[in-house]
Amino acid sequence: MIAGGSFLPGPVAVHPEVLAAMARPMISHRSPEMHHIMRRLQDRLRPLFRTTRPVLLGTCSATGYMELAARSAGAKLLAVDGGYFGWRFGAVAESCGVEVVRLMVPPGEVVTPDLLQDALDAHFPDAVSFVHSETATGALCDLGALARTVREHSDALVLVDAVTSVGGSAVETDAWGLDFVFTGSQKALGLPPGLALGVASERLVARARALPARGWYLDVVKHLEAAERHEPTQTPALPLVYALDHQLDRIARLGGVEGRWAHHRALQAVLYRWVNENPGWSFLAPSGARSMTVSALRPPRGLPTREVLRLMAARGYTLTGGLGELADAVVRVGHMGDITPVELSMMLSALAELRVVAQR
Amino acid sequence: MIAGGSFLPGPVAVHPEVLAAMARPMISHRSPEMHHIMRRLQDRLRPLFRTTRPVLLGTCSATGYMELAARSAGAKLLAVDGGYFGWRFGAVAESCGVEVVRLMVPPGEVVTPDLLQDALDAHFPDAVSFVHSETATGALCDLGALARTVREHSDALVLVDAVTSVGGSAVETDAWGLDFVFTGSQKALGLPPGLALGVASERLVARARALPARGWYLDVVKHLEAAERHEPTQTPALPLVYALDHQLDRIARLGGVEGRWAHHRALQAVLYRWVNENPGWSFLAPSGARSMTVSALRPPRGLPTREVLRLMAARGYTLTGGLGELADAVVRVGHMGDITPVELSMMLSALAELRVVAQR
Repeated sequence: MIAGGSFLPGPVAVHPEVLAAMARPMISHRSPEMHHIMRRLQDRLRPLFRTTRPVLLGTCSATGYMELAARSAGAKLLAVDGGYFGWRFGAVAESCGVEVVRLMVPPGEVVTPDLLQDALDAHFPDAVSFVHSETATGALCDLGALARTVREHSDALVLVDAVTSVGGSAVETDAWGLDFVFTGSQKALGLPPGLALGVASERLVARARALPARGWYLDVVKHLEAAERHEPTQTPALPLVYALDHQLDRIARLGGVEGRWAHHRALQAVLYRWVNENPGWSFLAPSGARSMTVSALRPPRGLPTREVLRLMAARGYTLTGGLGELADAVVRVGHMGDITPVELSMMLSALAELRVVAQR
Repeated sequence: MIAGGSFLPGPVAVHPEVLAAMARPMISHRSPEMHHIMRRLQDRLRPLFRTTRPVLLGTCSATGYMELAARSAGAKLLAVDGGYFGWRFGAVAESCGVEVVRLMVPPGEVVTPDLLQDALDAHFPDAVSFVHSETATGALCDLGALARTVREHSDALVLVDAVTSVGGSAVETDAWGLDFVFTGSQKALGLPPGLALGVASERLVARARALPARGWYLDVVKHLEAAERHEPTQTPALPLVYALDHQLDRIARLGGVEGRWAHHRALQAVLYRWVNENPGWSFLAPSGARSMTVSALRPPRGLPTREVLRLMAARGYTLTGGLGELADAVVRVGHMGDITPVELSMMLSALAELRVVAQR
């Protein structure tokens, strides 16, 4: 085993077997072979999202599907904003001409159903955007309860950035009644970046059909119709499709989506124990509302974020700081994808040593 | 040498060295290493487009950049439509709420400056869309003369789908005064699909800035600003960026963009000689207006397109038919990317034998 490695909250390190799968020869995106691959992907992607609906697949970053959601949902969006990606959902919608009202949440915290209900009653939005696991803060909201609140108090659509939760912890698309939920390939799925995956409810698609000027490349109707025909929407990034095909096979062999959640629980447990054993370090997000895949840790007094990143880089480890105003306040650790508990433990051992060095 | 192979007009076969380059480890898209790669790509992409402007890079199919162009150009588009991709440019613009007037050209033919001038005088468009090399018909228009006509008779922007011409034959972005010109990775550049490349004029960017609701993922202003900072717009498809980096190095070593044009001239010469030597076969596009990278060939009487495709597939060769109403009228041969004249000759020998078999 080699010490060092990337613990970024994406793009995550990719298993060598998955990297190798990309080198297969190109095929026509209109061939029977492509159709066969797309059908196989459908069968394996549905359980990942816990849905019976078709899973949409796009050649774009997750931001592309954020825009697809924003273009599908009507004139007024309530954006729950508890960090960079919550902010971004609103900003993307604004860039598409949608009126955006923000429900601000302090960094690291999550919105409560009560606050959400007040905002719904005050603003009557056409849709509400959530970030399930806020990659900027490591906070995980109670999406099931929040979606229920929206449904009980309005007919707004529920749009969910689940970029660092799908494959990392439970995302119950059908049971929670989510109208659009999406992720990117380079997070808990352990793939290179470049593909977005999502599920759209019938309700969302019906509403989208009535909206003019949805565009072409990120039109949910085109993406749904392609998925139903087991075809890509446009010429897809074939090497990434091959990698996805291989990785879904690996995930199926390793216990399916529940095995994947258990893997991420094991990684999170390693980190929890380490934080308990290393006073001075603490989670930004409160107990009970923490992401299974990414943690923002406050470093001990006297050990600035930048110094942590620099010293860890010298040891071969790639970590990152916060985003925006949190830049120097936290160290972010991605504990997702195909890294093992042992690899995570080794990185944390190196992190623990920094504290000793700094305090001398 | 193994007989057989893909002669699709994209996705083209990719050189094994380029496929292997994709398997490098993931890095942060915000790292100094990424910045270094993006800077190196800029230096090598500018000569390919014959421009001093920044070259934009997006994780999407070329259709994504078609939409980016359509969203940047104003309220009314004159779409020159001489085949499937000419039609599509107009359809994409319509999907974005742009008013589209079509200038229809018979399949296989190209628009003349005179006809273009009449249409400009009749419709006063904000922009005109061209397909330089129409992949559906193998026709290559005289883009330099057409762009000059637009400039002399209007202040409309010149938008160019150069998907099967960049890297295949001369595209003089600056000298011809093109306002937006784009290609995809999976054509003459010989890469897997998933990346779009383009150049935007100052004039187009200024006009785009004044337009509301351009969106986020395909906003030309964001793509330009990212290119100027040597950053990707969003998390990019890293394996494809690695492949592009490697392939641009290969192209530079093999004589640069002019070497690439010479390679495609050599491939086209092989096909020309073959058509001359095989009566019954003919080009759909007239002499003097033929693509350097893709040809639509009418098969001999008594040898239907479908039969050609079936018999060639049995010999290990992948070709394709026409698109839309041309489906059964032509056989399309991609002669681009990294295939060699010898490989093309071998495929054509197999194609020549079909004729003999069918006539017995």
